[in-house]
Amino acid sequence: MSGPARESGCTELMSDPSDNAPSAPHATSDLEEGTALKPKFGADGLITCVATDASSGEVLMVAHMNEEALGKTVATGQAWYYSRSRRALWRKGETSGHTQRVVEMRIDCDQDAVWIRVEQTGGACHTGRHSCFYRAVPLGKGGVALEFRGARVFDPQAVYRDGSPGGARKRGGIK
Amino acid sequence: MSGPARESGCTELMSDPSDNAPSAPHATSDLEEGTALKPKFGADGLITCVATDASSGEVLMVAHMNEEALGKTVATGQAWYYSRSRRALWRKGETSGHTQRVVEMRIDCDQDAVWIRVEQTGGACHTGRHSCFYRAVPLGKGGVALEFRGARVFDPQAVYRDGSPGGARKRGGIK
Repeated sequence: MSGPARESGCTELMSDPSDNAPSAPHATSDLEEGTALKPKFGADGLITCVATDASSGEVLMVAHMNEEALGKTVATGQAWYYSRSRRALWRKGETSGHTQRVVEMRIDCDQDAVWIRVEQTGGACHTGRHSCFYRAVPLGKGGVALEFRGARVFDPQAVYRDGSPGGARKRGGIK
Repeated sequence: MSGPARESGCTELMSDPSDNAPSAPHATSDLEEGTALKPKFGADGLITCVATDASSGEVLMVAHMNEEALGKTVATGQAWYYSRSRRALWRKGETSGHTQRVVEMRIDCDQDAVWIRVEQTGGACHTGRHSCFYRAVPLGKGGVALEFRGARVFDPQAVYRDGSPGGARKRGGIK
């Protein structure tokens, strides 16, 4: 998953000005200025996906897709991801009912990251919040406590009923 | 960079309902419900960072931070990243002047992803666009061409003056 194949053009090139699209080799120009979808999956076969709330713009979660998950998302308009620890494809909300309908999908300049704007049913986060990003990091103040933002929108114990300690591991569901 | 250490709680747990925060071991609960910043850097020492426009909510770029970049971002309120290919810390806009002032920083449930809301000077993308995500992937239509969204906001050849082909490689700037 490491190495140049996963680099974002911008994360690299803004710090080094001389390798830019207008004068870069044809392959780079085509990747960045072409109309063909050529997602750059990493060595692990995955691409990073950011899901935001289509209405508020709030970032809901950061996850990963393999080729199949990306294909199913494009084909169905529902968000599919790939679980690295379980090594399995999954449809968001398949257990909780908290699905994500994709309003729009975008791909970045060098096609190694995907952004989906979604309509989120229930909450995106397994802790019960709308977004996984429910804590703010105070700036300019090292060591200061995180600040909670956003209350729970559902009760995870009610949604995930078999919430007993270690339940998943007993069933082999979590590796 | 692979393995459980980089997993997002939500990307895993929504697909397997039985391992959730309310009944999870203390360490997980503390990570997810505590107020201490404990960023989970991957095996490569990096954490994924999503930068969005503080006004519009548009995703500008997806990049990476190491511990030093994260620390500098928190301390200064300016976005710092880490370049994987160049193995170097860099401040966004150090060459182009297109800096990012961080309005707010958030961290996700299991602290393996960071979201910063920024005021972007100029454009975030080296291609001259405001956002790196300037192409939409049509849904429900396999193989259809990407659709461009958002015009250039600056001329990359003017901003990055040494734009000659291979210039960076000649200088050893790009690996």
